[in-house]
Amino acid sequence: MTSAFPPAHALQVSQWFNAPPLTLADLRGRVVVLEAFQMLCPGCVSHALPQALEIAQTFSREQVAVIGLHSVFEHHAAMTPTSLAAFLHEYRISFPVAVDAVVAGSPIPATMQAYAMQGTPTTLLIDREGRLRLQHFGRLRDLAIGAQIMALVNEPLPGVTTNAAAQPGCDEHGCTLPG
Amino acid sequence: MTSAFPPAHALQVSQWFNAPPLTLADLRGRVVVLEAFQMLCPGCVSHALPQALEIAQTFSREQVAVIGLHSVFEHHAAMTPTSLAAFLHEYRISFPVAVDAVVAGSPIPATMQAYAMQGTPTTLLIDREGRLRLQHFGRLRDLAIGAQIMALVNEPLPGVTTNAAAQPGCDEHGCTLPG
Amino acid sequence: MTSAFPPAHALQVSQWFNAPPLTLADLRGRVVVLEAFQMLCPGCVSHALPQALEIAQTFSREQVAVIGLHSVFEHHAAMTPTSLAAFLHEYRISFPVAVDAVVAGSPIPATMQAYAMQGTPTTLLIDREGRLRLQHFGRLRDLAIGAQIMALVNEPLPGVTTNAAAQPGCDEHGCTLPG
Amino acid sequence: MTSAFPPAHALQVSQWFNAPPLTLADLRGRVVVLEAFQMLCPGCVSHALPQALEIAQTFSREQVAVIGLHSVFEHHAAMTPTSLAAFLHEYRISFPVAVDAVVAGSPIPATMQAYAMQGTPTTLLIDREGRLRLQHFGRLRDLAIGAQIMALVNEPLPGVTTNAAAQPGCDEHGCTLPG
Repeated sequence: MTSAFPPAHALQVSQWFNAPPLTLADLRGRVVVLEAFQMLCPGCVSHALPQALEIAQTFSREQVAVIGLHSVFEHHAAMTPTSLAAFLHEYRISFPVAVDAVVAGSPIPATMQAYAMQGTPTTLLIDREGRLRLQHFGRLRDLAIGAQIMALVNEPLPGVTTNAAAQPGCDEHGCTLPG
Repeated sequence: MTSAFPPAHALQVSQWFNAPPLTLADLRGRVVVLEAFQMLCPGCVSHALPQALEIAQTFSREQVAVIGLHSVFEHHAAMTPTSLAAFLHEYRISFPVAVDAVVAGSPIPATMQAYAMQGTPTTLLIDREGRLRLQHFGRLRDLAIGAQIMALVNEPLPGVTTNAAAQPGCDEHGCTLPG
Repeated sequence: MTSAFPPAHALQVSQWFNAPPLTLADLRGRVVVLEAFQMLCPGCVSHALPQALEIAQTFSREQVAVIGLHSVFEHHAAMTPTSLAAFLHEYRISFPVAVDAVVAGSPIPATMQAYAMQGTPTTLLIDREGRLRLQHFGRLRDLAIGAQIMALVNEPLPGVTTNAAAQPGCDEHGCTLPG
Repeated sequence: MTSAFPPAHALQVSQWFNAPPLTLADLRGRVVVLEAFQMLCPGCVSHALPQALEIAQTFSREQVAVIGLHSVFEHHAAMTPTSLAAFLHEYRISFPVAVDAVVAGSPIPATMQAYAMQGTPTTLLIDREGRLRLQHFGRLRDLAIGAQIMALVNEPLPGVTTNAAAQPGCDEHGCTLPG
């Protein structure tokens, strides 16, 4: 399948929380929701991270991987990995969180630079083939992001025949999708 | 394609607002979101109807039809079509709304009886082949209903070859889906 | 005590719900919160009436009387006393509600005209001497209206010596004030 | 005036933000709202601190002093004064904030111990004579706290004759109280 969508840039990470180190290549076959945040960013705390937690609860782990990316570009002394560990504990964030790697001589960390993000929160959707499909700075509505993720979940992989009979029996508790 | 999903019961309607009379058969090929409500039901007003409006804004009309169903089973004298017309105007509800037909000798209207609804709000999802896929009484989370609708939008119709290259380019404003 | 505050206009009422007929003169000695609303006004339903209910729960009835005023100026056929009765039941509004009296030849009811209200919701605060102290069209913040009501509750009546030792022992459940 | 209300314990502070060092004695004559919080406490960030900011906007500074107290009893390495400075900047907290003094050999800081607080957030109301009038752990409703503060603002000081004619002309933007 040819496509105009670019491959997602690799994550450049100095430390992982809640998981052993992983790469986007490890997640091929699953949709990836990458939530770039700072622990002292009000919009991240009030909206983006609760939404990421709800995404993780709504979709099965086999279908969708939710990953946090702590992309600190200001107040570096205040948002250290030590502080982040306490933050993740207090806010009960249980999905994997990567610390975006520092770039010598720049306040902006490496992954944030590679994606040319405008700030935090930034939500990235990466499809099952590892291509960047959405990059959004700011708030996203729950209804729209739920639909967008499901659209990517349902995309056929090249060389794989989809079976309509295997489609989901959704209910309120989420969508039980074929594994 | 064989399926365990039952065909959705026909709507039994005495009056339409915001649209000429229509049937579920007219909507074949589109996903139908049917929102059964009463205009004096607090949960309908605070949650279900705003969610239905947001669904109508998020998905294209070619893909998803949002239909209100005014299923009055109490306070009949207070929730007449005259009152409903004012309600729809004040709450800026612009999608088609059907008045569920009165059944002689029963407080419960005809469509509500056919679906054996427990109360209002009840949300029904009907797939592109006219089959009932979800019936839920009470509140639904935006993220889950967005995903569920998109799952149905993306189901292939029998005899139609899906084209993976035609998949959506979603953005924050909604999902621009193939027509 | 002389004062620049005008006496509140008498209520002109065709029907009462949740209480026998009463007048502002009957309420002298108490602060009156008068909430003018229409049952099909979205801002009244989502904000003003829930706030009025919370005011009634926070302050003692001996100190503060919360009164609804159904001031219909549009969609008269949709907002009849029959419809209002069902509305009050469904929204569990238990404080007294007056139906603002119709004025022959005008869409605007009598009390609404007397106060020159701009629309609904309008919140009126009337002090213990029956004087109008606040008239506000639109939304009021909970914190500010709580403070404003308490300021009026604590105003001394002329000829009555206040006793500082009798001041309230407030707690989270509200303010237990001297009777 | 005799009273059963205890004098408020002195603040034990190692550092001040947004203000030069001050004591409760300095604030005598004003009502003090003391908000004890931790910067990584979710309930503090989502509810208690926004409420404290709204209190500061609603009441005049001459009447009510809002003071934050950073009472860290867990994750000490994550909630240093350096981190707190960044937090106050990002959350635009402009009222004075005191760092509760560390007690050697204890995780619980000195002022928190003196008041026997159960956790954070804890809201304290101190009256114009420096007496503790409310101590509440957890969430407070805006309407109730607004009323409680105003009740204390209006309490006469001993030896001062209150002047009923000087009472407030409240409006939506807050309560303009006699200085």
